[in-house]
Amino acid sequence: MDHLRRIGALRRKLTRAGLPGLLVTHPPDVRYLCGFTGSNAAVAVTRRAARLFTDGRYTAQAAEEVKAARVEIVSSAPAVCAVQWLAAQAGVMTSGFDPVRTAVADLARWKTALPPQIRRGFLTPLPVPFVDSLRQVKDEEELAVMREAALIGCKLFERILGEFRPRISELEIAAELEYQARRMGAEGMSFETIVASGERSAFPHGRATHAALPRRGFLTLDFGIIHKGYCSDMTRSVFFGKPRPRERKAYSAVLEAQEAAVAAVAAGVSASEVDEVARARLRREGLAEAFSHSTGHGVGLEIHEPPRIGAGQKTRLEAGMVVTIEPGIYLPGEFGIRIEDMVQVTRNGGQVLTPAPKALIEL
Amino acid sequence: MDHLRRIGALRRKLTRAGLPGLLVTHPPDVRYLCGFTGSNAAVAVTRRAARLFTDGRYTAQAAEEVKAARVEIVSSAPAVCAVQWLAAQAGVMTSGFDPVRTAVADLARWKTALPPQIRRGFLTPLPVPFVDSLRQVKDEEELAVMREAALIGCKLFERILGEFRPRISELEIAAELEYQARRMGAEGMSFETIVASGERSAFPHGRATHAALPRRGFLTLDFGIIHKGYCSDMTRSVFFGKPRPRERKAYSAVLEAQEAAVAAVAAGVSASEVDEVARARLRREGLAEAFSHSTGHGVGLEIHEPPRIGAGQKTRLEAGMVVTIEPGIYLPGEFGIRIEDMVQVTRNGGQVLTPAPKALIEL
Repeated sequence: MDHLRRIGALRRKLTRAGLPGLLVTHPPDVRYLCGFTGSNAAVAVTRRAARLFTDGRYTAQAAEEVKAARVEIVSSAPAVCAVQWLAAQAGVMTSGFDPVRTAVADLARWKTALPPQIRRGFLTPLPVPFVDSLRQVKDEEELAVMREAALIGCKLFERILGEFRPRISELEIAAELEYQARRMGAEGMSFETIVASGERSAFPHGRATHAALPRRGFLTLDFGIIHKGYCSDMTRSVFFGKPRPRERKAYSAVLEAQEAAVAAVAAGVSASEVDEVARARLRREGLAEAFSHSTGHGVGLEIHEPPRIGAGQKTRLEAGMVVTIEPGIYLPGEFGIRIEDMVQVTRNGGQVLTPAPKALIEL
Repeated sequence: MDHLRRIGALRRKLTRAGLPGLLVTHPPDVRYLCGFTGSNAAVAVTRRAARLFTDGRYTAQAAEEVKAARVEIVSSAPAVCAVQWLAAQAGVMTSGFDPVRTAVADLARWKTALPPQIRRGFLTPLPVPFVDSLRQVKDEEELAVMREAALIGCKLFERILGEFRPRISELEIAAELEYQARRMGAEGMSFETIVASGERSAFPHGRATHAALPRRGFLTLDFGIIHKGYCSDMTRSVFFGKPRPRERKAYSAVLEAQEAAVAAVAAGVSASEVDEVARARLRREGLAEAFSHSTGHGVGLEIHEPPRIGAGQKTRLEAGMVVTIEPGIYLPGEFGIRIEDMVQVTRNGGQVLTPAPKALIEL
């Protein structure tokens, strides 16, 4: 990964924000900027230097992983050392920090570690998103890894379809899926696997339970794996038994909404426009209220990243973003349906990274 | 679980701290105080009332789970609603919040939602630990659940021993363990399973890798499951092949240190005394430097809770606490060994909750 380029882009952003220094403590941001994957680290960036602070457990690992920043092994808290280092740099009168990922107690500790005369004004909350706004647009290497991650997800889905048997429980499906993911080399799951069947499919975030799969009804499977640090995310709803016309019609409506939103993805289009395409389609079927969440979100080193694909979101999509498109409907006491793909934004449109079948699967 | 008793104990703590109100947002604290297991919730407590704020997705769940607090379903951020509610209560001039689990940006948002005349002084950082210090001492119902959780862990360990075969990878061991845990009804793992074999056993927190199990050498397995919300935690190091005298001696030293520390656990003993018992034993073998972490930590709804069993920790153990006792040694380039049990503190001593064999297993 080209960390020097990323730190360069970050410096340009710092200059535009009028900030001579920056403290980075959120682990995915640390990894993004310099490649370090350990815990307990902080990166300090000025216009001239970049330095990673971590502890002695990571001496060998930091030397191996980090090329774009100088590594300093410290015996007290890395973030405190990073703040003190920033304060000691010529021309650095103030430094940004992430107010969303910094605890009130940590900020107080960092301030206490500064010389009293600068304590008050040295640390400035960054505009949000900041490092995240760089992370939104993936480079070629990241896209290659994310394509692999998405394809592993698709293979897993195909494999798990063969495991759906009567009387097996949702938890057993989740266990089997996660086991196969590990066997296929995944580093872990990117979030708690959702297996929601029968009436429970009407819970947007139904955790797997001991409930046995239903004789008839929908089952929604929403899962993702972590591959080389990057998250995949996909959802399919399948049907046990023979769907009634109403169920079939609802599925078609969600599928059409999802495909229309995918088709609306392109560089230059706003996030809210994509959301509205899905929403309008479901509104036409009288399902506007049943679609109770946003259409999607960015994905990358974290499972939820900007941009959010929702109403009122003015962010314009850019080539290299990877977002989910996942409209769903939830009819309490009846059923729920959600269909989700990962989509890469390109200049000419959206490229689906999760090419698993979307026509209704009847089991 | 007796939530009314817990809220009563919390009120006495608030009175002692001179605080008329309290905002609780950390999900394990919310669950502890009123039983609610959903996300996106806040609890507000005054000397006379307790109220849970959450969103419409949780209407049914909150009604079912929460008896000890009044439930209010809100359409904006629950924590903001809770702060505004606290500010509207007669006699509540200030309320505590958790500075360790509150982001700088959230605190700013809460303040903005308050009437300008009280904005400045209304929210007070709590002494740390606060709700955690109640959670340290488990009640009978919690202890029963934790005993079950620990026994599930022991059964898993026995089962996974049968899976250790040449050429299987660390990741496959982790996958198998996690699969069996799910099949035994675990809600999930309480932390990322550590499988570190051969020279990698010298990494205290070695994530499982694609490395095949060694022909000879140690393998350290550190894992935990979640059962009814509560975490288990245990570690065993086993040996492939025939250990050399030096390896056998090192294992005996760790085992003796661990057993001595377990024997030192009792109500009234300080955490640092227990730590020192383990440390002194390893020091005698010239292994003081190789034991590079604390002896243990509290465990419960979270995998790491107070008290910390380490040097300088003055907390006195109390009957009902559950702590880990897990000395280890790490010799870079050679091997590592760690042995960990969960131990319940009783008036007369420590009761081991994880009765899996500790004599060196040779495979």
